[in-house]
Amino acid sequence: MSLTGFGSPLPATFPGRRQIAAGGEEGDLKMTRQFQLKTTAKTDFVDITPLVQQAVERSKVEEGLCYVFVPHTTAGVTINENADPHVSADIGMALNLMVPAQERYQHMEGNSPAHIKASLVGSSQVVFVQAKRLVLGTWQGIFFCEFDGPRNRQVYVRVVKAEE
Amino acid sequence: MSLTGFGSPLPATFPGRRQIAAGGEEGDLKMTRQFQLKTTAKTDFVDITPLVQQAVERSKVEEGLCYVFVPHTTAGVTINENADPHVSADIGMALNLMVPAQERYQHMEGNSPAHIKASLVGSSQVVFVQAKRLVLGTWQGIFFCEFDGPRNRQVYVRVVKAEE
Amino acid sequence: MSLTGFGSPLPATFPGRRQIAAGGEEGDLKMTRQFQLKTTAKTDFVDITPLVQQAVERSKVEEGLCYVFVPHTTAGVTINENADPHVSADIGMALNLMVPAQERYQHMEGNSPAHIKASLVGSSQVVFVQAKRLVLGTWQGIFFCEFDGPRNRQVYVRVVKAEE
Repeated sequence: MSLTGFGSPLPATFPGRRQIAAGGEEGDLKMTRQFQLKTTAKTDFVDITPLVQQAVERSKVEEGLCYVFVPHTTAGVTINENADPHVSADIGMALNLMVPAQERYQHMEGNSPAHIKASLVGSSQVVFVQAKRLVLGTWQGIFFCEFDGPRNRQVYVRVVKAEE
Repeated sequence: MSLTGFGSPLPATFPGRRQIAAGGEEGDLKMTRQFQLKTTAKTDFVDITPLVQQAVERSKVEEGLCYVFVPHTTAGVTINENADPHVSADIGMALNLMVPAQERYQHMEGNSPAHIKASLVGSSQVVFVQAKRLVLGTWQGIFFCEFDGPRNRQVYVRVVKAEE
Repeated sequence: MSLTGFGSPLPATFPGRRQIAAGGEEGDLKMTRQFQLKTTAKTDFVDITPLVQQAVERSKVEEGLCYVFVPHTTAGVTINENADPHVSADIGMALNLMVPAQERYQHMEGNSPAHIKASLVGSSQVVFVQAKRLVLGTWQGIFFCEFDGPRNRQVYVRVVKAEE
Protein backbone atom coordinates (compact mmCIF):
# COMPACT_ATOMS: atom_id res chain seq x y z
CA MET A 1 0.00 0.00 0.00
CA SER A 2 1.34 3.39 -0.80
CA LEU A 3 0.22 6.83 0.18
CA THR A 4 0.74 9.77 -2.03
CA GLY A 5 3.92 11.64 -1.17
CA PHE A 6 4.23 14.92 0.66
CA GLY A 7 4.00 16.97 -2.46
CA SER A 8 6.42 19.79 -2.10
CA PRO A 9 7.36 20.04 1.54
CA LEU A 10 6.30 23.35 2.98
CA PRO A 11 9.19 25.46 4.13
CA ALA A 12 9.46 25.20 7.89
CA THR A 13 11.94 27.03 9.98
CA PHE A 14 12.08 26.63 13.68
CA PRO A 15 10.14 27.98 15.47
CA GLY A 16 7.33 27.05 13.18
CA ARG A 17 4.63 24.55 12.72
CA ARG A 18 4.29 22.42 9.67
CA GLN A 19 1.33 20.21 9.11
CA ILE A 20 1.64 17.15 6.95
CA ALA A 21 -1.71 16.55 5.42
CA ALA A 22 -1.04 13.85 2.90
CA GLY A 23 1.48 11.67 4.66
CA GLY A 24 4.71 10.39 3.19
CA GLU A 25 5.55 7.12 1.58
CA GLU A 26 4.20 4.12 3.36
CA GLY A 27 6.25 0.97 3.53
CA ASP A 28 4.96 -2.56 3.47
CA LEU A 29 6.08 -3.62 6.92
CA LYS A 30 2.73 -5.42 7.35
CA MET A 31 0.77 -3.89 10.21
CA THR A 32 3.28 -1.12 10.68
CA ARG A 33 2.57 1.89 8.51
CA GLN A 34 5.77 3.73 7.76
CA PHE A 35 5.90 7.38 6.81
CA GLN A 36 8.81 9.42 5.53
CA LEU A 37 9.39 12.87 6.93
CA LYS A 38 11.84 15.61 6.04
CA THR A 39 12.72 17.95 8.87
CA THR A 40 14.15 21.33 7.98
CA ALA A 41 15.87 22.68 11.08
CA LYS A 42 18.04 21.52 13.97
CA THR A 43 15.01 21.61 16.26
CA ASP A 44 11.78 21.07 14.36
CA PHE A 45 8.36 20.09 15.67
CA VAL A 46 6.19 18.72 12.87
CA ASP A 47 2.46 18.26 13.41
CA ILE A 48 1.77 14.74 12.18
CA THR A 49 -1.82 14.55 13.41
CA PRO A 50 -3.37 14.48 9.91
CA LEU A 51 -0.94 11.78 8.85
CA VAL A 52 -1.82 9.65 11.88
CA GLN A 53 -5.54 10.22 11.43
CA GLN A 54 -5.13 9.16 7.82
CA ALA A 55 -3.46 5.94 8.93
CA VAL A 56 -6.42 5.28 11.22
CA GLU A 57 -8.90 5.86 8.39
CA ARG A 58 -7.02 3.56 6.04
CA SER A 59 -6.99 0.79 8.63
CA LYS A 60 -9.93 -1.50 9.25
CA VAL A 61 -10.09 -0.53 12.92
CA GLU A 62 -13.26 1.12 14.20
CA GLU A 63 -12.53 0.91 17.92
CA GLY A 64 -9.02 0.48 19.20
CA LEU A 65 -5.71 2.10 19.84
CA CYS A 66 -3.26 3.96 17.68
CA TYR A 67 0.46 3.84 18.40
CA VAL A 68 2.99 6.26 16.99
CA PHE A 69 6.59 5.12 17.25
CA VAL A 70 9.73 6.99 16.22
CA PRO A 71 12.62 4.63 15.29
CA HIS A 72 15.31 7.27 15.91
CA THR A 73 17.44 8.14 18.92
CA THR A 74 17.76 11.90 18.37
CA ALA A 75 14.07 12.50 17.68
CA GLY A 76 10.87 11.70 19.54
CA VAL A 77 7.13 12.21 19.57
CA THR A 78 4.91 14.24 21.88
CA ILE A 79 1.31 15.33 22.21
CA ASN A 80 0.72 19.03 22.82
CA GLU A 81 -1.13 22.07 21.52
CA ASN A 82 -1.25 22.47 17.76
CA ALA A 83 -3.54 25.50 17.55
CA ASP A 84 -0.82 28.05 18.28
CA PRO A 85 2.48 27.09 16.59
CA HIS A 86 4.29 29.10 19.25
CA VAL A 87 3.61 26.37 21.78
CA SER A 88 5.73 23.72 20.08
CA ALA A 89 8.36 26.35 19.34
CA ASP A 90 8.43 27.22 23.05
CA ILE A 91 8.79 23.55 23.98
CA GLY A 92 11.76 23.21 21.64
CA MET A 93 13.33 26.36 23.04
CA ALA A 94 12.78 25.32 26.65
CA LEU A 95 14.40 21.94 26.00
CA ASN A 96 17.36 23.76 24.47
CA LEU A 97 17.64 25.82 27.66
CA MET A 98 17.12 22.87 30.02
CA VAL A 99 19.47 20.30 28.58
CA PRO A 100 23.06 21.24 29.46
CA ALA A 101 25.40 22.37 26.68
CA GLN A 102 27.77 19.91 25.15
CA GLU A 103 31.20 20.36 26.64
CA ARG A 104 31.11 17.57 29.19
CA TYR A 105 29.61 14.82 27.05
CA GLN A 106 31.52 11.68 26.15
CA HIS A 107 29.60 10.75 23.01
CA MET A 108 31.81 12.11 20.25
CA GLU A 109 29.20 12.95 17.63
CA GLY A 110 28.29 16.19 19.35
CA ASN A 111 24.59 15.42 19.51
CA SER A 112 24.22 14.17 23.07
CA PRO A 113 21.68 16.91 23.89
CA ALA A 114 19.50 15.55 21.07
CA HIS A 115 19.67 12.03 22.54
CA ILE A 116 18.71 13.39 25.96
CA LYS A 117 15.75 15.35 24.59
CA ALA A 118 14.57 12.23 22.77
CA SER A 119 14.44 10.35 26.08
CA LEU A 120 12.65 13.26 27.77
CA VAL A 121 9.76 13.43 25.30
CA GLY A 122 9.77 9.70 24.53
CA SER A 123 9.78 7.41 21.50
CA SER A 124 6.07 6.62 21.35
CA GLN A 125 2.58 7.89 21.99
CA VAL A 126 -0.73 6.11 22.20
CA VAL A 127 -4.11 7.60 21.32
CA PHE A 128 -7.53 5.96 21.63
CA VAL A 129 -9.43 5.30 18.41
CA GLN A 130 -13.18 5.55 18.39
CA ALA A 131 -15.47 5.36 15.35
CA LYS A 132 -12.34 5.54 13.21
CA ARG A 133 -11.24 8.84 14.79
CA LEU A 134 -8.33 9.66 17.09
CA VAL A 135 -9.74 10.62 20.48
CA LEU A 136 -7.70 13.75 21.15
CA GLY A 137 -8.50 16.73 23.34
CA THR A 138 -9.60 19.96 21.68
CA TRP A 139 -6.14 21.45 21.62
CA GLN A 140 -4.09 18.30 21.23
CA GLY A 141 -2.00 17.38 18.23
CA ILE A 142 0.73 14.79 17.71
CA PHE A 143 4.17 16.21 17.00
CA PHE A 144 7.24 14.58 15.55
CA CYS A 145 10.09 16.15 17.54
CA GLU A 146 13.33 16.64 15.62
CA PHE A 147 16.32 17.43 17.81
CA ASP A 148 19.18 16.83 15.40
CA GLY A 149 17.92 17.97 12.01
CA PRO A 150 17.55 18.67 9.28
CA ARG A 151 17.22 15.01 8.33
CA ASN A 152 15.10 12.47 6.57
CA ARG A 153 13.11 10.66 9.22
CA GLN A 154 10.55 7.92 9.64
CA VAL A 155 7.43 7.52 11.71
CA TYR A 156 5.80 4.16 12.37
CA VAL A 157 2.06 4.01 13.02
CA ARG A 158 0.11 1.01 14.15
CA VAL A 159 -3.65 0.89 14.57
CA VAL A 160 -4.98 -2.10 16.47
CA LYS A 161 -8.39 -3.39 17.39
CA ALA A 162 -9.19 -3.38 21.08
CA GLU A 163 -12.13 -4.46 23.16
CA GLU A 164 -13.12 -4.59 26.77
CA MET B 1 -22.89 4.22 32.97
CA SER B 2 -22.34 6.71 35.71
CA LEU B 3 -20.15 6.65 38.73
CA THR B 4 -21.06 8.46 41.85
CA GLY B 5 -19.46 11.90 41.99
CA PHE B 6 -16.47 12.94 44.03
CA GLY B 7 -18.55 13.81 47.00
CA SER B 8 -17.09 16.97 48.42
CA PRO B 9 -13.62 17.36 47.00
CA LEU B 10 -11.01 17.25 49.71
CA PRO B 11 -9.14 20.50 50.01
CA ALA B 12 -5.79 20.10 48.33
CA THR B 13 -3.15 22.74 48.22
CA PHE B 14 0.15 22.17 46.54
CA PRO B 15 2.24 20.52 47.80
CA GLY B 16 -0.32 18.00 48.83
CA ARG B 17 -1.74 14.70 47.79
CA ARG B 18 -5.38 14.14 47.16
CA GLN B 19 -6.79 10.73 46.53
CA ILE B 20 -9.96 10.34 44.57
CA ALA B 21 -11.67 7.25 45.81
CA ALA B 22 -15.01 7.37 44.12
CA GLY B 23 -14.19 8.76 40.73
CA GLY B 24 -15.99 11.55 38.95
CA GLU B 25 -18.72 11.44 36.40
CA GLU B 26 -18.22 8.96 33.67
CA GLY B 27 -19.23 9.78 30.15
CA ASP B 28 -20.63 7.41 27.57
CA LEU B 29 -17.85 7.58 25.02
CA LYS B 30 -18.20 3.81 24.52
CA MET B 31 -15.02 2.04 25.56
CA THR B 32 -13.46 5.22 26.86
CA ARG B 33 -14.31 5.87 30.48
CA GLN B 34 -14.26 9.57 31.19
CA PHE B 35 -13.75 11.05 34.61
CA GLN B 36 -14.10 14.62 35.76
CA LEU B 37 -11.50 16.09 38.04
CA LYS B 38 -11.23 19.42 39.83
CA THR B 39 -7.71 20.56 40.55
CA THR B 40 -7.22 23.14 43.23
CA ALA B 41 -3.81 24.72 42.70
CA LYS B 42 -1.53 25.91 39.92
CA THR B 43 0.55 22.75 40.32
CA ASP B 44 -1.46 19.85 41.69
CA PHE B 45 -0.70 16.14 41.62
CA VAL B 46 -3.84 14.11 42.19
CA ASP B 47 -3.59 10.40 42.97
CA ILE B 48 -6.09 8.80 40.60
CA THR B 49 -5.08 5.18 41.31
CA PRO B 50 -8.37 4.26 43.03
CA LEU B 51 -10.34 5.80 40.18
CA VAL B 52 -8.36 3.83 37.60
CA GLN B 53 -8.64 0.61 39.61
CA GLN B 54 -12.36 1.19 39.80
CA ALA B 55 -12.54 1.53 36.02
CA VAL B 56 -10.73 -1.81 35.74
CA GLU B 57 -13.17 -3.48 38.11
CA ARG B 58 -16.17 -2.12 36.26
CA SER B 59 -14.84 -3.41 32.96
CA LYS B 60 -15.19 -7.00 31.83
CA VAL B 61 -11.43 -7.40 31.45
CA GLU B 62 -9.68 -10.00 33.58
CA GLU B 63 -6.30 -9.96 31.83
CA GLY B 64 -5.22 -7.03 29.75
CA LEU B 65 -3.94 -3.52 29.72
CA CYS B 66 -5.18 -0.29 31.19
CA TYR B 67 -4.49 3.02 29.48
CA VAL B 68 -4.83 6.39 31.16
CA PHE B 69 -4.97 9.34 28.76
CA VAL B 70 -5.13 13.03 29.61
CA PRO B 71 -6.82 15.08 26.85
CA HIS B 72 -5.22 18.36 27.91
CA THR B 73 -2.06 20.18 26.86
CA THR B 74 -1.14 21.78 30.18
CA ALA B 75 -1.60 18.65 32.28
CA GLY B 76 -0.24 15.13 32.11
CA VAL B 77 -0.11 11.80 33.90
CA THR B 78 2.76 10.05 35.66
CA ILE B 79 3.41 6.99 37.80
CA ASN B 80 5.36 7.57 41.00
CA GLU B 81 5.28 7.04 44.76
CA ASN B 82 1.96 7.66 46.45
CA ALA B 83 2.87 6.54 49.96
CA ASP B 84 4.58 9.80 50.92
CA PRO B 85 2.71 12.82 49.50
CA HIS B 86 5.97 14.76 49.65
CA VAL B 87 7.27 12.83 46.64
CA SER B 88 4.73 14.20 44.18
CA ALA B 89 5.10 17.63 45.76
CA ASP B 90 8.86 17.40 45.19
CA ILE B 91 8.32 16.40 41.55
CA GLY B 92 6.08 19.41 41.02
CA MET B 93 8.61 21.70 42.67
CA ALA B 94 11.54 20.28 40.72
CA LEU B 95 9.68 20.79 37.43
CA ASN B 96 9.02 24.38 38.47
CA LEU B 97 12.75 24.81 39.03
CA MET B 98 13.80 22.99 35.85
CA VAL B 99 11.52 24.56 33.28
CA PRO B 100 12.76 28.08 32.49
CA ALA B 101 10.66 31.06 33.58
CA GLN B 102 8.39 32.69 31.14
CA GLU B 103 9.98 35.82 29.77
CA ARG B 104 11.28 34.43 26.49
CA TYR B 105 8.24 32.45 25.39
CA GLN B 106 6.27 33.36 22.28
CA HIS B 107 2.96 31.74 23.26
CA MET B 108 0.97 34.67 24.61
CA GLU B 109 -1.19 32.92 27.18
CA GLY B 110 1.60 32.88 29.74
CA ASN B 111 1.39 29.15 30.35
CA SER B 112 4.19 27.83 28.16
CA PRO B 113 5.93 26.26 31.18
CA ALA B 114 2.79 24.19 31.77
CA HIS B 115 2.81 22.97 28.16
CA ILE B 116 6.46 21.99 28.49
CA LYS B 117 5.90 20.09 31.73
CA ALA B 118 3.01 18.24 30.09
CA SER B 119 5.34 17.00 27.37
CA LEU B 120 7.97 16.02 29.94
CA VAL B 121 5.69 13.76 32.00
CA GLY B 122 3.58 12.68 29.03
CA SER B 123 -0.08 12.40 28.11
CA SER B 124 -0.60 8.71 28.82
CA GLN B 125 0.40 5.78 30.98
CA VAL B 126 -0.14 2.06 30.57
CA VAL B 127 -0.46 -0.46 33.39
CA PHE B 128 -0.86 -4.22 33.08
CA VAL B 129 -4.13 -5.71 34.34
CA GLN B 130 -4.12 -9.13 35.93
CA ALA B 131 -7.04 -10.85 37.63
CA LYS B 132 -8.91 -7.54 37.40
CA ARG B 133 -6.18 -5.66 39.31
CA LEU B 134 -3.68 -3.06 38.16
CA VAL B 135 -0.20 -4.59 38.33
CA LEU B 136 1.64 -1.75 40.06
CA GLY B 137 4.78 -1.87 42.16
CA THR B 138 4.48 -1.58 45.93
CA TRP B 139 5.05 2.16 45.99
CA GLN B 140 3.52 3.10 42.66
CA GLY B 141 0.45 5.20 42.16
CA ILE B 142 -0.97 6.98 39.11
CA PHE B 143 -1.02 10.77 39.32
CA PHE B 144 -2.91 13.31 37.30
CA CYS B 145 -0.42 16.17 36.94
CA GLU B 146 -1.95 19.64 36.85
CA PHE B 147 0.44 22.34 35.68
CA ASP B 148 -1.96 25.20 34.97
CA GLY B 149 -4.69 24.92 37.58
CA PRO B 150 -6.94 25.22 39.26
CA ARG B 151 -9.22 23.87 36.55
CA ASN B 152 -11.87 21.33 35.74
CA ARG B 153 -10.13 18.47 33.98
CA GLN B 154 -10.84 15.13 32.40
CA VAL B 155 -9.14 11.76 32.46
CA TYR B 156 -9.84 9.04 29.93
CA VAL B 157 -9.37 5.40 30.93
CA ARG B 158 -9.51 2.43 28.62
CA VAL B 159 -9.25 -1.18 29.75
CA VAL B 160 -8.65 -3.70 26.99
CA LYS B 161 -8.36 -7.45 26.79
CA ALA B 162 -4.96 -8.74 25.81
CA GLU B 163 -3.51 -12.17 25.21
CA GLU B 164 -0.25 -13.70 24.18
CA MET C 1 8.48 -20.81 33.20
CA SER C 2 12.00 -19.94 34.16
CA LEU C 3 14.83 -18.39 32.28
CA THR C 4 18.39 -19.13 33.05
CA GLY C 5 19.90 -16.59 35.40
CA PHE C 6 22.25 -13.78 34.55
CA GLY C 7 25.29 -15.86 35.13
CA SER C 8 27.83 -13.67 36.81
CA PRO C 9 26.76 -10.10 36.32
CA LEU C 10 29.32 -8.16 34.39
CA PRO C 11 30.88 -5.39 36.38
CA ALA C 12 29.28 -2.13 35.39
CA THR C 13 30.25 1.20 36.73
CA PHE C 14 28.54 4.33 35.63
CA PRO C 15 29.08 5.54 33.00
CA GLY C 16 29.00 2.16 31.37
CA ARG C 17 26.78 -0.08 29.40
CA ARG C 18 25.90 -3.54 30.44
CA GLN C 19 23.97 -5.86 28.24
CA ILE C 20 21.90 -8.62 29.73
CA ALA C 21 21.89 -11.43 27.24
CA ALA C 22 20.29 -14.25 29.12
CA GLY C 23 17.66 -12.50 31.19
CA GLY C 24 17.09 -12.99 34.89
CA GLU C 25 14.63 -15.13 36.71
CA GLU C 26 11.18 -15.06 35.33
CA GLY C 27 8.19 -15.17 37.62
CA ASP C 28 4.90 -16.86 37.00
CA LEU C 29 2.68 -13.83 37.05
CA LYS C 30 0.77 -15.30 34.11
CA MET C 31 1.11 -13.10 31.04
CA THR C 32 3.56 -10.82 32.78
CA ARG C 33 7.14 -11.96 32.38
CA GLN C 34 9.20 -10.80 35.34
CA PHE C 35 12.93 -10.37 35.23
CA GLN C 36 15.37 -9.71 38.03
CA LEU C 37 18.07 -7.14 37.57
CA LYS C 38 21.00 -6.07 39.71
CA THR C 39 22.17 -2.53 39.19
CA THR C 40 25.65 -1.64 40.31
CA ALA C 41 25.84 2.14 40.62
CA LYS C 42 23.75 5.08 41.80
CA THR C 43 22.96 5.93 38.17
CA ASP C 44 23.08 2.88 35.93
CA PHE C 45 21.62 2.40 32.46
CA VAL C 46 21.30 -1.29 31.64
CA ASP C 47 20.62 -2.40 28.07
CA ILE C 48 17.77 -4.89 28.40
CA THR C 49 17.08 -5.24 24.67
CA PRO C 50 18.24 -8.88 24.46
CA LEU C 51 16.15 -9.77 27.50
CA VAL C 52 13.06 -8.17 25.98
CA GLN C 53 13.70 -9.78 22.60
CA GLN C 54 14.02 -13.10 24.39
CA ALA C 55 10.65 -12.57 26.06
CA VAL C 56 9.16 -11.94 22.62
CA GLU C 57 10.67 -15.13 21.23
CA ARG C 58 9.41 -17.19 24.15
CA SER C 59 5.90 -15.86 23.70
CA LYS C 60 3.49 -17.18 21.10
CA VAL C 61 3.06 -13.78 19.54
CA GLU C 62 4.06 -13.33 15.91
CA GLU C 63 2.54 -9.90 15.33
CA GLY C 64 1.74 -7.59 18.17
CA LEU C 65 3.07 -5.25 20.79
CA CYS C 66 5.64 -5.57 23.52
CA TYR C 67 5.34 -3.57 26.71
CA VAL C 68 8.16 -3.05 29.17
CA PHE C 69 7.07 -1.82 32.61
CA VAL C 70 9.25 -0.91 35.56
CA PRO C 71 7.45 -1.38 38.91
CA HIS C 72 9.72 1.03 40.79
CA THR C 73 9.47 4.73 41.57
CA THR C 74 13.18 5.60 41.47
CA ALA C 75 13.93 3.80 38.21
CA GLY C 76 12.45 3.94 34.73
CA VAL C 77 12.85 2.70 31.18
CA THR C 78 13.85 4.52 28.02
CA ILE C 79 14.69 3.81 24.39
CA ASN C 80 17.91 5.33 23.08
CA GLU C 81 21.17 4.50 21.33
CA ASN C 82 22.90 1.33 22.48
CA ALA C 83 25.76 1.27 19.95
CA ASP C 84 27.91 3.77 21.83
CA PRO C 85 27.71 3.26 25.62
CA HIS C 86 28.64 6.91 26.07
CA VAL C 87 25.16 7.93 24.96
CA SER C 88 23.36 6.40 27.93
CA ALA C 89 26.13 7.63 30.20
CA ASP C 90 25.59 11.14 28.86
CA ILE C 91 21.84 10.88 29.44
CA GLY C 92 22.44 9.87 33.05
CA MET C 93 24.90 12.71 33.54
CA ALA C 94 22.60 15.28 31.92
CA LEU C 95 19.71 14.22 34.17
CA ASN C 96 22.01 14.63 37.16
CA LEU C 97 22.79 18.16 36.00
CA MET C 98 19.19 19.04 35.15
CA VAL C 99 17.35 17.84 38.22
CA PRO C 100 17.98 20.28 41.07
CA ALA C 101 20.09 19.13 44.04
CA GLN C 102 18.40 17.90 47.12
CA GLU C 103 18.37 20.63 49.69
CA ARG C 104 14.84 21.91 49.19
CA TYR C 105 13.00 18.58 48.96
CA GLN C 106 10.42 17.51 51.54
CA HIS C 107 10.66 13.76 51.00
CA MET C 108 12.97 12.64 53.80
CA GLU C 109 14.65 9.66 52.17
CA GLY C 110 17.04 11.86 50.22
CA ASN C 111 16.19 10.34 46.87
CA SER C 112 13.73 12.86 45.48
CA PRO C 113 15.94 13.50 42.43
CA ALA C 114 15.65 9.79 41.59
CA HIS C 115 11.84 9.98 41.78
CA ILE C 116 11.86 13.01 39.50
CA LYS C 117 14.12 11.35 36.93
CA ALA C 118 11.84 8.31 36.93
CA SER C 119 8.89 10.50 35.97
CA LEU C 120 10.96 12.24 33.28
CA VAL C 121 11.95 9.05 31.44
CA GLY C 122 8.75 7.18 32.32
CA SER C 123 7.71 3.81 33.70
CA SER C 124 6.98 2.02 30.46
CA GLN C 125 7.86 1.66 26.80
CA VAL C 126 6.06 0.01 23.94
CA VAL C 127 7.70 -1.56 20.89
CA PHE C 128 5.97 -3.12 17.88
CA VAL C 129 6.51 -6.85 17.35
CA GLN C 130 6.68 -8.21 13.84
CA ALA C 131 7.56 -11.76 12.79
CA LYS C 132 8.55 -12.38 16.42
CA ARG C 133 11.07 -9.50 16.39
CA LEU C 134 11.06 -6.16 18.14
CA VAL C 135 10.71 -3.43 15.50
CA LEU C 136 13.42 -1.06 16.68
CA GLY C 137 15.38 1.50 14.72
CA THR C 138 18.97 0.73 13.76
CA TRP C 139 20.46 2.48 16.77
CA GLN C 140 17.70 1.88 19.28
CA GLY C 141 17.97 -0.21 22.40
CA ILE C 142 15.81 -0.48 25.51
CA PHE C 143 17.45 0.68 28.73
CA PHE C 144 16.51 0.06 32.33
CA CYS C 145 17.31 3.38 34.02
CA GLU C 146 18.52 3.10 37.60
CA PHE C 147 18.51 6.41 39.48
CA ASP C 148 18.89 5.21 43.07
CA GLY C 149 21.16 2.17 42.91
CA PRO C 150 22.78 -0.09 43.39
CA ARG C 151 19.71 -2.24 43.98
CA ASN C 152 17.94 -5.41 43.02
CA ARG C 153 15.26 -4.46 40.55
CA GLN C 154 12.51 -5.98 38.46
CA VAL C 155 11.33 -5.51 34.93
CA TYR C 156 7.93 -6.66 33.69
CA VAL C 157 7.48 -7.56 30.04
CA ARG C 158 4.23 -8.31 28.31
CA VAL C 159 3.90 -9.43 24.72
CA VAL C 160 0.40 -9.26 23.28
CA LYS C 161 -1.21 -10.19 20.00
CA ALA C 162 -2.55 -7.31 17.99
CA GLU C 163 -4.37 -6.99 14.71
CA GLU C 164 -5.83 -4.29 12.58
